[in-house]
Amino acid sequence: MSKIVTFGEIMMRLQPPSYKRLIQAESFSVYFGGSEANTAAALAQWGEKAVFVTKLPVNDLGEACIRNLKSFDVDTSYIDRGNGRMGVYYTEKGGSQRPPQVLYDRQYSDFSLAQPEDFDFEKIFQGADWFHFSGITPALGGNLPAITKAAVAAARRAGCKISCDFNYRSKLWSTEEARRVMPELITDIDALIINHNQANEVFDIEADTLEEAAKKIHALFHPGLSVITGRKTVSGEVNEFSSLIYYDKKFFKSRTYSIFMIDKIGGGDAFSAGLIYGIVNDKNLQEAVDFAAAAAAYKHTIEGDFITAAVSDIRWVMRSDGKGRMVR
Amino acid sequence: MSKIVTFGEIMMRLQPPSYKRLIQAESFSVYFGGSEANTAAALAQWGEKAVFVTKLPVNDLGEACIRNLKSFDVDTSYIDRGNGRMGVYYTEKGGSQRPPQVLYDRQYSDFSLAQPEDFDFEKIFQGADWFHFSGITPALGGNLPAITKAAVAAARRAGCKISCDFNYRSKLWSTEEARRVMPELITDIDALIINHNQANEVFDIEADTLEEAAKKIHALFHPGLSVITGRKTVSGEVNEFSSLIYYDKKFFKSRTYSIFMIDKIGGGDAFSAGLIYGIVNDKNLQEAVDFAAAAAAYKHTIEGDFITAAVSDIRWVMRSDGKGRMVR
Amino acid sequence: MSKIVTFGEIMMRLQPPSYKRLIQAESFSVYFGGSEANTAAALAQWGEKAVFVTKLPVNDLGEACIRNLKSFDVDTSYIDRGNGRMGVYYTEKGGSQRPPQVLYDRQYSDFSLAQPEDFDFEKIFQGADWFHFSGITPALGGNLPAITKAAVAAARRAGCKISCDFNYRSKLWSTEEARRVMPELITDIDALIINHNQANEVFDIEADTLEEAAKKIHALFHPGLSVITGRKTVSGEVNEFSSLIYYDKKFFKSRTYSIFMIDKIGGGDAFSAGLIYGIVNDKNLQEAVDFAAAAAAYKHTIEGDFITAAVSDIRWVMRSDGKGRMVR
Amino acid sequence: MSKIVTFGEIMMRLQPPSYKRLIQAESFSVYFGGSEANTAAALAQWGEKAVFVTKLPVNDLGEACIRNLKSFDVDTSYIDRGNGRMGVYYTEKGGSQRPPQVLYDRQYSDFSLAQPEDFDFEKIFQGADWFHFSGITPALGGNLPAITKAAVAAARRAGCKISCDFNYRSKLWSTEEARRVMPELITDIDALIINHNQANEVFDIEADTLEEAAKKIHALFHPGLSVITGRKTVSGEVNEFSSLIYYDKKFFKSRTYSIFMIDKIGGGDAFSAGLIYGIVNDKNLQEAVDFAAAAAAYKHTIEGDFITAAVSDIRWVMRSDGKGRMVR
Amino acid sequence: MSKIVTFGEIMMRLQPPSYKRLIQAESFSVYFGGSEANTAAALAQWGEKAVFVTKLPVNDLGEACIRNLKSFDVDTSYIDRGNGRMGVYYTEKGGSQRPPQVLYDRQYSDFSLAQPEDFDFEKIFQGADWFHFSGITPALGGNLPAITKAAVAAARRAGCKISCDFNYRSKLWSTEEARRVMPELITDIDALIINHNQANEVFDIEADTLEEAAKKIHALFHPGLSVITGRKTVSGEVNEFSSLIYYDKKFFKSRTYSIFMIDKIGGGDAFSAGLIYGIVNDKNLQEAVDFAAAAAAYKHTIEGDFITAAVSDIRWVMRSDGKGRMVR
Amino acid sequence: MSKIVTFGEIMMRLQPPSYKRLIQAESFSVYFGGSEANTAAALAQWGEKAVFVTKLPVNDLGEACIRNLKSFDVDTSYIDRGNGRMGVYYTEKGGSQRPPQVLYDRQYSDFSLAQPEDFDFEKIFQGADWFHFSGITPALGGNLPAITKAAVAAARRAGCKISCDFNYRSKLWSTEEARRVMPELITDIDALIINHNQANEVFDIEADTLEEAAKKIHALFHPGLSVITGRKTVSGEVNEFSSLIYYDKKFFKSRTYSIFMIDKIGGGDAFSAGLIYGIVNDKNLQEAVDFAAAAAAYKHTIEGDFITAAVSDIRWVMRSDGKGRMVR
Repeated sequence: MSKIVTFGEIMMRLQPPSYKRLIQAESFSVYFGGSEANTAAALAQWGEKAVFVTKLPVNDLGEACIRNLKSFDVDTSYIDRGNGRMGVYYTEKGGSQRPPQVLYDRQYSDFSLAQPEDFDFEKIFQGADWFHFSGITPALGGNLPAITKAAVAAARRAGCKISCDFNYRSKLWSTEEARRVMPELITDIDALIINHNQANEVFDIEADTLEEAAKKIHALFHPGLSVITGRKTVSGEVNEFSSLIYYDKKFFKSRTYSIFMIDKIGGGDAFSAGLIYGIVNDKNLQEAVDFAAAAAAYKHTIEGDFITAAVSDIRWVMRSDGKGRMVR
Repeated sequence: MSKIVTFGEIMMRLQPPSYKRLIQAESFSVYFGGSEANTAAALAQWGEKAVFVTKLPVNDLGEACIRNLKSFDVDTSYIDRGNGRMGVYYTEKGGSQRPPQVLYDRQYSDFSLAQPEDFDFEKIFQGADWFHFSGITPALGGNLPAITKAAVAAARRAGCKISCDFNYRSKLWSTEEARRVMPELITDIDALIINHNQANEVFDIEADTLEEAAKKIHALFHPGLSVITGRKTVSGEVNEFSSLIYYDKKFFKSRTYSIFMIDKIGGGDAFSAGLIYGIVNDKNLQEAVDFAAAAAAYKHTIEGDFITAAVSDIRWVMRSDGKGRMVR
Repeated sequence: MSKIVTFGEIMMRLQPPSYKRLIQAESFSVYFGGSEANTAAALAQWGEKAVFVTKLPVNDLGEACIRNLKSFDVDTSYIDRGNGRMGVYYTEKGGSQRPPQVLYDRQYSDFSLAQPEDFDFEKIFQGADWFHFSGITPALGGNLPAITKAAVAAARRAGCKISCDFNYRSKLWSTEEARRVMPELITDIDALIINHNQANEVFDIEADTLEEAAKKIHALFHPGLSVITGRKTVSGEVNEFSSLIYYDKKFFKSRTYSIFMIDKIGGGDAFSAGLIYGIVNDKNLQEAVDFAAAAAAYKHTIEGDFITAAVSDIRWVMRSDGKGRMVR
Repeated sequence: MSKIVTFGEIMMRLQPPSYKRLIQAESFSVYFGGSEANTAAALAQWGEKAVFVTKLPVNDLGEACIRNLKSFDVDTSYIDRGNGRMGVYYTEKGGSQRPPQVLYDRQYSDFSLAQPEDFDFEKIFQGADWFHFSGITPALGGNLPAITKAAVAAARRAGCKISCDFNYRSKLWSTEEARRVMPELITDIDALIINHNQANEVFDIEADTLEEAAKKIHALFHPGLSVITGRKTVSGEVNEFSSLIYYDKKFFKSRTYSIFMIDKIGGGDAFSAGLIYGIVNDKNLQEAVDFAAAAAAYKHTIEGDFITAAVSDIRWVMRSDGKGRMVR
Repeated sequence: MSKIVTFGEIMMRLQPPSYKRLIQAESFSVYFGGSEANTAAALAQWGEKAVFVTKLPVNDLGEACIRNLKSFDVDTSYIDRGNGRMGVYYTEKGGSQRPPQVLYDRQYSDFSLAQPEDFDFEKIFQGADWFHFSGITPALGGNLPAITKAAVAAARRAGCKISCDFNYRSKLWSTEEARRVMPELITDIDALIINHNQANEVFDIEADTLEEAAKKIHALFHPGLSVITGRKTVSGEVNEFSSLIYYDKKFFKSRTYSIFMIDKIGGGDAFSAGLIYGIVNDKNLQEAVDFAAAAAAYKHTIEGDFITAAVSDIRWVMRSDGKGRMVR
Repeated sequence: MSKIVTFGEIMMRLQPPSYKRLIQAESFSVYFGGSEANTAAALAQWGEKAVFVTKLPVNDLGEACIRNLKSFDVDTSYIDRGNGRMGVYYTEKGGSQRPPQVLYDRQYSDFSLAQPEDFDFEKIFQGADWFHFSGITPALGGNLPAITKAAVAAARRAGCKISCDFNYRSKLWSTEEARRVMPELITDIDALIINHNQANEVFDIEADTLEEAAKKIHALFHPGLSVITGRKTVSGEVNEFSSLIYYDKKFFKSRTYSIFMIDKIGGGDAFSAGLIYGIVNDKNLQEAVDFAAAAAAYKHTIEGDFITAAVSDIRWVMRSDGKGRMVR
């Protein structure tokens, strides 16, 4: 069991039922999620000691969120508590030509207004093996670029491995801002995960293949592992997901999953969790990327931000033909 | 902002949740809709002054219906009120080999029993720019063929443009009846919209292409615009939708959308609205048919009869690859 | 109207809404079902006198189950009542790479603990034309292999036709056990229905085609009709279903349905019902297999174990192109 | 087991969830009910052979209704089928100062348009022991007063006992009409059940007590049993229910139940069923009225028109202190 | 039809179903409401020209809110639009000893950050007859005390009657703050409505009766009408509501309603609407207070912030014994 | 923070929505609960280290249950896992004259078939301060009386305080069996909690007051604290709850709560938790019984078996007038 720390915002997610639009909403389903929280929930569920660090208000919503994390066995003891508000995001599922929508109401959240002293990273990283964050955390602005930088520095001092899911979000910041802030955070870390299209969008990396993109990412930021994910939108309902690790001039490529998308949120976070899980459990890189890709595919079949699946469920997908045959 | 008048029946629509059959129904979702009401709701939402004329009972269902129309900004001030019943229709979604079902309970509705004097068309069309109706209105029988004729005449006197969505419904009348009643209503109007298959079914128009069908429709009824829509059932879940305007010996053809059908009702009504919207906003015919086709596709992704989408939503689809990619 | 007796277990089925996993369940939809009950409900609904024999506890769940059967016109008068528990099974729908799950909680049910004297088969088969059971019944163990054997013997004495849906369930018994128990029950019966893959899994029948499998099944057990069903998993959402009767050295093959699976349970049971319906109504074997296959496809579009469809619904599918076009 | 025939209309009942008003309805729960159907469902459930006679359309709603009746073991074989519509009624629950609402959409239903020849009462009453109807049936107008009269006459000829629940409905007819039509139907029948207030409203019977009202009803119509029910509205949530039989100059009075009203519909119908049940099972009149009153109280705790309760449930209430104590 | 302007914040209200606590919430029902919006919705529904002035973001939630207001016929044309967030509040129903909860997430809303120039009160009050606001608006802080003051001044200049519902909210500001800000806003207005307990809590008015409180309020602020409402908590489910107008040394007192509380929100806002309605429709003060009190009681039987009731519904309550008897 | 161990069965609880009966159930809400688990969940939530010991199957239901316990911070690390089934119980809410129903399907559960060696009580009680169980655990039969005895003995050896909630369940065993098994388990323990009526039902203790009952219980079993709870059924909706501790010849009596019952399950378990909480936090006995009674009342306002309330919520009730007034 490795101690894996993730740091970021967790929000309440509200989504109308079925294919209803936000503007039609008569009710919302309630979930909790956020990139790093999703990764932590997966890892905790799979048996790792996953510590999720964030800041949440002292009210019933903050409390409900923490209970949700606890139910997945996430260690919530380093969550700072504030007196303000919790970030909320509203989603609608989308369908066919109509794209899924994400409406953020996360500004002024306790996390986005966090202060450097809210988090005692020295203590948090004691005994930690791994630190993971995503590009969303610095994208929230305020003190968060600085706090993230402090976290990375503390993690290094503690001897942790460090990974980052690049996760560029155009609704949070511009590509210019991302280009200004991110390089310092991701250069020379142990694993940098970036989506093929985002590599192009933010860093102008032109690459016809995941392999090519990985090499260019490696050239730019020389992370231990350069990990590229690829998504192709086949239709409003079907996406193709593939991924690849570039390490030591070798490529380790997962199979390509054709996914009927039940929930478009959280696949990348499950991928990160799968990758970390594979590595801390001493799997070889091929097994790690296979597990990570299967976890990503599996996540897209689950409603809610957290992947609700055991290691055995993911392995079942890895061994299967990817067509979800019933056993009875 | 143009004043656009539509005239027809609006009903309460009751549909069991998910894929449930009517015969299994333990609950119904409640919507309101009808061909001309759907078109009006789209146009009002897009900023036009859309006046919907119908007759509804003075009871809580009639009132709920009017509130629903008002929420979309439809002008309901010319709706006549009666003391009888409101039409109701029951739908089940269908799936795979099982076709969607429509069960009408609209007989004896206040609208279907309307009298000519219930509607003061002179007043209604004052300042109006456009009159739209569908073939469903005269199909309801009773006085409605005569009232529709009176409406068309009044619209002409008021200098309105006139459009008709042919909308043949075999559950309401026979092809013989339609052939007897419709020609007088549609000849020489400004825009006649007809489905490729219905052109064949009702008027024996044999045509391999939409182009050919348009020419033949033009030859028969010489409307200003001959507008043909084509639907191909790829499977129980997927339809293809295309459309074309024939005008001045030129064809203006939309792209073909492959649609995962979330709601099979109301696509044609959104198409009509899109066409009218394009024309009254001085778009060229290519833009108009593109907007109309995108509106039709978009509608099929929405639960309920009214398209719940802004002009910008439709334009997003027009600019997109039609695969509903998420932006975040 | 033929009297058709089926014998087996009926359970309460609990399934979380939408695509939710069992582990996420905040609520369950309630259905009742079981292979032989499903077949009986179909036949009763189609106008046959369908007698379903089982054992159910005297409590509100048992009573609710019986009411459900009665609503379909199933004759429940031979259901034995106990003082224990009713079998329950939990399902989750699955989606894409994630397989549907079935979690049985049927052990210790009143039926699985039934005694030979609980069922007076002499009386039950008086005037009966047909007896149908599935391989699930003997798979439940305890006295059930013996009771099933007694039922088959009594049915023979009463001059009934006998059919069996092989229905091997790996969660209930091993292939060895099935090979030990089943042959005695299925040899020389009037119709043996077996899935292509199961023929291979249990009896090592290697066959590239349904035709080949049918011949080999015939050679082994020489039933009146050797009926083979084939399923191909195209994706997590789409299955292909085909079927074939082998009789008197002739093949009667249904068309192949490509089915968007709304409920993965009960297709085979509807197939059995369709086959029996065809035969007792003196249809030729081609018509019978066509009706049976259409019933199987139709069932997979229905939520719940029982097919909720009239004979005319099934015939509509047979005549259609299998794409569920809406009529209105 | 006695054969008890009831005759009247059954409708689909649609009610929004919780305390929602009709005008707010986003969904409806679906029930089926009608005074005489409710009485039949109770009697069938309690083991009598209850035949319910009505007319229903051949469509999915009519079919769903019949299945619902069958699930309660009601004999539906004499239900005539039409090609029109089914009556519908909409209810809202009400609460506190806000009264429950009933909105009828039953005009033009197949039953209300029924013809005398639709029902073969000679056949229906063969072997019947009892005929029950309510004042709602003739209140529907058209041929129904005459058909009801014919039914009463046929029941007499067949030697049935006859009972009527007076059930005056001001939304269906005026007191004048009721006074014109009802006396012929209720004079000299075996049991006339009438609400204390309605006795006053329709027949100007002024009576301070149920006893007094019973005597005056007896004087007017000399039924075998004069049965008076009393309801007192304590608040929007609580009603008091009492009842009394007057027979042979003796009074048999039930206890008074103070009822927290969960569903305001169907209490009187359960009372009628309880009374008939008591009498056909040779209970003395005190036991009969006690059972009937307990059934009425019990019904008001059940959602939906049909009482869903076994004889033992009703007896439990009779023996209890009326406060619904949990046993576990 | 009078033009009545109200000014304040409208929020999205999210409440878990049934008696669920926020911390248990798996779903929320969606409503929109706020004190002044609720008053406007009531008045618009009752036929007045009700203009609601607020500021809402340009997003799907703001749009959904405006549609909801439009469905009630509220004039939304003066609503300013921003680019930030909409206020949200979360409620749980409470029950028995457990109090209802209100959790505000309204800080940083577009309205609470509004600027004086966002509202052109000169234009808004053109032709207006009445201006109504509540003490919640200035309690939101920022510029709102000043903007409210400007609104009051503009209303005076336009010759409007002015009313204020004092509505002290301890979760928004302290009694000290309220005492500092409110007097200037309420002195000498035409109608000041204040709850008996709040009069004591904020202004130390000790009064055993509503009459006494009214006199003291009059002495302090000499409004045209001094209106006192009284609430007594009988139990977690039942409240008593009474009210009184003091004018020209005369008291006009409503009856006291004992209310089974279905929704604890919005009763006071319905009361204000009822009072204004009575006065602008030239009812005498006794009728006005009776209508207002009946509206308040009625509101508490409705789920959601807006009273969904016609004038005739309120009048029905006024004429009734307050016990919600069903008519059918 | 004290370490408090509880031992017993936890089941899945399934309840139809609203006031629906089991026999009408179309869906169930899912909860988890059991007397000792409920007590543990309350204590964990209030900050104690609560260890719940039971046996649960290794399947999705067992896993979901454990996640639910974890979300409340219950220590689940000593839960034994089996390969069988989880106990289930079905409830219906009841209302007015209709009593709530409990239908157990707990026979053959992994817990009820547990073996002595499944629980290592020496290890479990290391460092523990308190052991709590209820009379339900031995009532389950099999090895459970012996295992409970072993647990009590181990707890004594470990120096734990021991408490028992007598909790007689007539659906599980007879009074004779309870009289045979329980005395050995409860004699001389630190706190014995027993309901007034059960003291009479099982031990023939006739007592007009809680005081008298407490003395007699003390005389029989001389526990450290003799704790009596009293419940009076005022109506189907309202219960009165009171309680009393007898210690050192002194009485410590709580106030009497009149409770509108939202959920009839779990009040006693919350009482036990409250009592233990008060004592381990060094409250005096009056404070302890007041907190316990308030917790019991609070629990009955919560849907689900676990009390979802903070210590501050309970204290709010203690300080309030018990009428659930809203603060806003």
